[in-house]
Amino acid sequence: MAVDYQSLAVRGVQALSPYQPGKPIEELARELGLDPAAIIKLASNENPLGPSEKALAAAREALADLCLYPDGNGFELKQALAKRFGVEMSQITLGNGSNDILEVIARCFADADAEVIFSQYAFAVYPLVTQAIGARGVAVPARDWGHDLDAMAAAVTDRTKLIFVANPNNPTGTVHHGDAMLAFLEKVPERVLVVLDEAYCEYLQGDGYADGVELLSRFPNLIVCRTFSKAWGLAALRVGYSISSPEIADILNRVRQPFNVDSIALAAATAVLADEDYLKRSCDVNAAGMKQLETAFAEMALPYIPSSGNFIAVEVGERAGDVYQGLLQRGVIVRPVGGYGMPRHLRVSIGLPEENARFVEALKQTLESLGQGR
Amino acid sequence: MAVDYQSLAVRGVQALSPYQPGKPIEELARELGLDPAAIIKLASNENPLGPSEKALAAAREALADLCLYPDGNGFELKQALAKRFGVEMSQITLGNGSNDILEVIARCFADADAEVIFSQYAFAVYPLVTQAIGARGVAVPARDWGHDLDAMAAAVTDRTKLIFVANPNNPTGTVHHGDAMLAFLEKVPERVLVVLDEAYCEYLQGDGYADGVELLSRFPNLIVCRTFSKAWGLAALRVGYSISSPEIADILNRVRQPFNVDSIALAAATAVLADEDYLKRSCDVNAAGMKQLETAFAEMALPYIPSSGNFIAVEVGERAGDVYQGLLQRGVIVRPVGGYGMPRHLRVSIGLPEENARFVEALKQTLESLGQGR
Repeated sequence: MAVDYQSLAVRGVQALSPYQPGKPIEELARELGLDPAAIIKLASNENPLGPSEKALAAAREALADLCLYPDGNGFELKQALAKRFGVEMSQITLGNGSNDILEVIARCFADADAEVIFSQYAFAVYPLVTQAIGARGVAVPARDWGHDLDAMAAAVTDRTKLIFVANPNNPTGTVHHGDAMLAFLEKVPERVLVVLDEAYCEYLQGDGYADGVELLSRFPNLIVCRTFSKAWGLAALRVGYSISSPEIADILNRVRQPFNVDSIALAAATAVLADEDYLKRSCDVNAAGMKQLETAFAEMALPYIPSSGNFIAVEVGERAGDVYQGLLQRGVIVRPVGGYGMPRHLRVSIGLPEENARFVEALKQTLESLGQGR
Repeated sequence: MAVDYQSLAVRGVQALSPYQPGKPIEELARELGLDPAAIIKLASNENPLGPSEKALAAAREALADLCLYPDGNGFELKQALAKRFGVEMSQITLGNGSNDILEVIARCFADADAEVIFSQYAFAVYPLVTQAIGARGVAVPARDWGHDLDAMAAAVTDRTKLIFVANPNNPTGTVHHGDAMLAFLEKVPERVLVVLDEAYCEYLQGDGYADGVELLSRFPNLIVCRTFSKAWGLAALRVGYSISSPEIADILNRVRQPFNVDSIALAAATAVLADEDYLKRSCDVNAAGMKQLETAFAEMALPYIPSSGNFIAVEVGERAGDVYQGLLQRGVIVRPVGGYGMPRHLRVSIGLPEENARFVEALKQTLESLGQGR
């Protein structure tokens, strides 16, 4: 009798559904027979500016050494990050995107007996990495679409090993101020690690928002995760990092793959850190695009969740799946978030002004064709 | 009292020592105050040819989309691999180097109760990924530096989940013929997965060697792993893949990170598969360099292990550590293999003719200065 390999997988993996990324442009083009150039994708919270010239130049130069393994220690990138944030290189762990870091943390500190806390409506990778190791995920109900930090602290038990906190959160865009984060961290026992996922922190405008790096010196159980995939515009290259105590970084560095970040990624990320102008333009384009979409949604009387990220969740109603399909037919890819328990919303990444306008027009047409227009 | 985070890590991780990569050229240059251009590295089994022009052109073109996430499904690369090997796309799993695939396999199918079999002197990543999940590694004594396949099959117990077989093996370069591999696979129960790591298979010259892809149709428990880091010359980019049954690939694809291979890597790997001339030159340069080193070792009366890879393990005696240091002082980086239980050997990657000659000269000088010359 044939062996059922599914049944041979470890328990957590047997029930695992893989992460559903945004639909790639090429895939939609293949499916609909469209020209890829005629499609816009506002589905993966990508930076619409195109890459930094400094990052591009460094990447081009690094291509000469394609035959050589990357620097497994990431010396130059860690040096640049340490300088930027005023931390020691020994506090930094590099990842193949921050996804890699999130997974490595879970594998280092949680096993099948552990509980891992995260919020309702939080980033899908938290429950996925939790389930892959067979640990128990504890999804704490959200408050106003955001993390209920009091309830998350209260959910800690003797078995809790990790708490994932996304600030700003994806896909809702909600954010906490520094005082709220401080109060939360003071409630969490030091034996429980807090993973503060700040993938979107560069977009925060104004004072008062929680800054994980500033909190590190007070909380040895804190791990701050960031990424080059959003405001820094390097999603193609997969570079993320964490900053923590050297002790925790030492543990993470044992488990990460020895060459988890590739040479082109290391070079481009190091170079882009010196491109403050790019970062500023990223944030400016995002802020203007956010206003553009908020205004359009208000005109269309569509409720939305105020967002501090580079995306916005808009409530299109119970036919959100049809709206998503209608947008696809019009060559606009956004992200359905039913898998996040938000079946009435779509998540739209902020694009360039003309992309945002095209999305708004396609949304109006779609809603009209579905009889929901006004 | 301060929390000891080391003690909070999962059991397997607490005792883990990270993989030791070959010393990077930049690191040696920093340590010795040498010009990086004056250093040669024959330590990481890298392709000495420099990159394929076709791969370079594709990588350059892909840089335009640095802001966009990679195709998480790797459609074009899988399509090219499927065509090359006459398999279905659904049989392929892409990895951030084959290291990634090896780790994902272990995490999918082995837990803390499992036993994982590998050979003495086999690739260091097998025991590392085994230990990280807290499984029991079973290192089967080698025969003539190579895998003792009979003994490995005999080591299977009720708890055995995986067997790692490297063919050719790194760091010894030993290889098995097809009939030996067939006999081995026929002895292994179907419920035990055999991971056939063929990272160096492209260098095999002549007939009769085991070809994992040909064996796949007969053995549903077989997973063949390969890489673009060696003969294909793309170590910087981290691309590996496995070919297995679609059922097993489906399980692996649930656990791999959704964007584990980056866009530049996908583009370059897809393009290099069309560069047969590059592959042929890689193999020709390697064969010539292997002869050059074998001849030199014979002249120096240094025993070596005949190798089918792009490297060779040479026995320099009990002062191998001093020989390694003496070579470093002369700007030549090779790989000590004491960590593999081979304290009398050094592993040398095959370089270009002039690099090989420079290594031989530095080795002669070093042995003479240590009073071991002849």
